[in-house]
Amino acid sequence: MSYQLYYWPSIQGRGEFVRLALEEAGAPYVDVARSDAPGAGVPALMRLLESTELPLPPFAPPVLRAETLLISQTATILEFIGAHHGLAPQEEAGRLAVQQLQLTLADWLAEVHDTHHPIASGQYYEEQKPEARRRAQDFRAHRLPKYLGYFERVIHQNPAGERYLYGGSLTYADLSLFQMVEGLRYAFPGAMAQLEPGHPRIVRAHAHVRERPRIAAYLASPRRLKFNAQGIFRHYPQLDTG
Amino acid sequence: MSYQLYYWPSIQGRGEFVRLALEEAGAPYVDVARSDAPGAGVPALMRLLESTELPLPPFAPPVLRAETLLISQTATILEFIGAHHGLAPQEEAGRLAVQQLQLTLADWLAEVHDTHHPIASGQYYEEQKPEARRRAQDFRAHRLPKYLGYFERVIHQNPAGERYLYGGSLTYADLSLFQMVEGLRYAFPGAMAQLEPGHPRIVRAHAHVRERPRIAAYLASPRRLKFNAQGIFRHYPQLDTG
Repeated sequence: MSYQLYYWPSIQGRGEFVRLALEEAGAPYVDVARSDAPGAGVPALMRLLESTELPLPPFAPPVLRAETLLISQTATILEFIGAHHGLAPQEEAGRLAVQQLQLTLADWLAEVHDTHHPIASGQYYEEQKPEARRRAQDFRAHRLPKYLGYFERVIHQNPAGERYLYGGSLTYADLSLFQMVEGLRYAFPGAMAQLEPGHPRIVRAHAHVRERPRIAAYLASPRRLKFNAQGIFRHYPQLDTG
Repeated sequence: MSYQLYYWPSIQGRGEFVRLALEEAGAPYVDVARSDAPGAGVPALMRLLESTELPLPPFAPPVLRAETLLISQTATILEFIGAHHGLAPQEEAGRLAVQQLQLTLADWLAEVHDTHHPIASGQYYEEQKPEARRRAQDFRAHRLPKYLGYFERVIHQNPAGERYLYGGSLTYADLSLFQMVEGLRYAFPGAMAQLEPGHPRIVRAHAHVRERPRIAAYLASPRRLKFNAQGIFRHYPQLDTG
C-alpha cells in the first residue's frame, strides 16, 4: 500500500510521529505538502482541509490517505499503521495497551506545546512570554518529571523485559517516545540534562530506536526536517533551566 | 461482563464520558471510589494508581477493569466499550473514524480545562486568575467556535444523515459530544447562548442523546453527579461572557 501524508511542510510537529512509523515500516509514502509534483504542495493540503464533501472532514493535520481511507488524529493514524505493518500487537489487550500509551504521549506533547503557547495557540509566542515563562517553569518542575517518571516505570514494569514500553517487540509507541526525547532534548536541554540520569531506561529506549537501521537512515536523510522555532518543540532559553 | 470504573468520586470529569457509555450500554458496573463496599472507596483507587506490580500502570484515572483487562485513557476505554456493546462500528474504517472523532473531543475537553488552569494544573485557579481570563477570552472567541463549527460540519457532511456524528446509529462519540454540550452550557452559559443558534445540528444531536431512555434515566438518578467548581467544566462568571 502506498500512502499520502498531509502535514505542514516546514515543521516536524505531529506529522513527525507518523513519518517515524512509516519510515520504520518501510512503507512508501508521499509527503504531499513537501512534494513539488503536479497537484501536490501546500495547496493540496489546504484543499483537503477545506473540502466540504468529505464524509468525515479532518479537524487538523496530520491526515493519512491509504487508498480510499482518510485518517486523521495522530494516534488514530498510528493505530492504523501499527495494525498493518507489525508495529502493534494484533490481539485486543495489546492493541489497547499501546493505544493507551500513545494517548499519554499525546497529552505530554500537548503540554510541551503549551509551554510556549499557554494563552492562545493563534497568537505569537511573543504575545504571551510572561505566561509562557510561568507555565514552562511548572512544566520543568512538575509535569516533565511526572511524565518521565511514568514512562520509566512503564518500561521497568514491562513483564517482557526493559527494552520496550509494551511487550517484547517494537511498537509505534516506542517510536513516539523516541521523538519525545528528541524534542525535549532540543527544547529543554538544561532540564533534560538534569533529569536524564534518573531515567536510564528511557535513555536506553531512545538509543535503541535511534540505532534501528531504517530510523538511522531516515534521521540522516533530507526527509528528516530540523527542529525550529515554528514547531511544537521550541528552544527558547528563557523557558529552560541553565 | 461486569465492570469496575476507577475515577475520582466527587466530579464528573473524564470519568463521565465512560459512565455515559456504560449507562447507554446497560452494562453493570461498580463506580469503585464512590462505593462503600469493603475494599472499595478512594483507597482502592489510590492503591491501583500506586501499584508497582501492574504490567502496564495507568497514568491517571479513569481506569476500567474488565475482568483481567485494565484499561486507561478515556478514548481507549470508550473504544473497548464501543466494540463490546454496539456503540461503535465493527469494521476498520468506521472504528477508526469514531476514534478520530473522540480524540478531537478529547482535545477540546483539554482546552476547556486549561481555560481555568492555563499555567499549572497542580495549582489553584485562584493562583492563575488573570491568565485564565486571557485564555478563556481566546477560547470563547476562537477555539469554542472552531470546535463547534467543526462538529456541526461533521454532522452535516455525514452521508448517512444528520442524526449522528458518524454513520446511521449512535456511537460513543455522540455520547461524548452530548457531554461536551452539557458541560459547556454549565461553564459558559453566556457564550453558548450566543453560539448555539448557529449550530442547530449539534443542539439537536444533544437533545437526541438526552432523550434516550437509558440516558434520561441515568441523568435523573443519583449516579449522575452535579457539575461543580472542582471538575473540568467550571462556571466562573468572569471567564464567560454575559
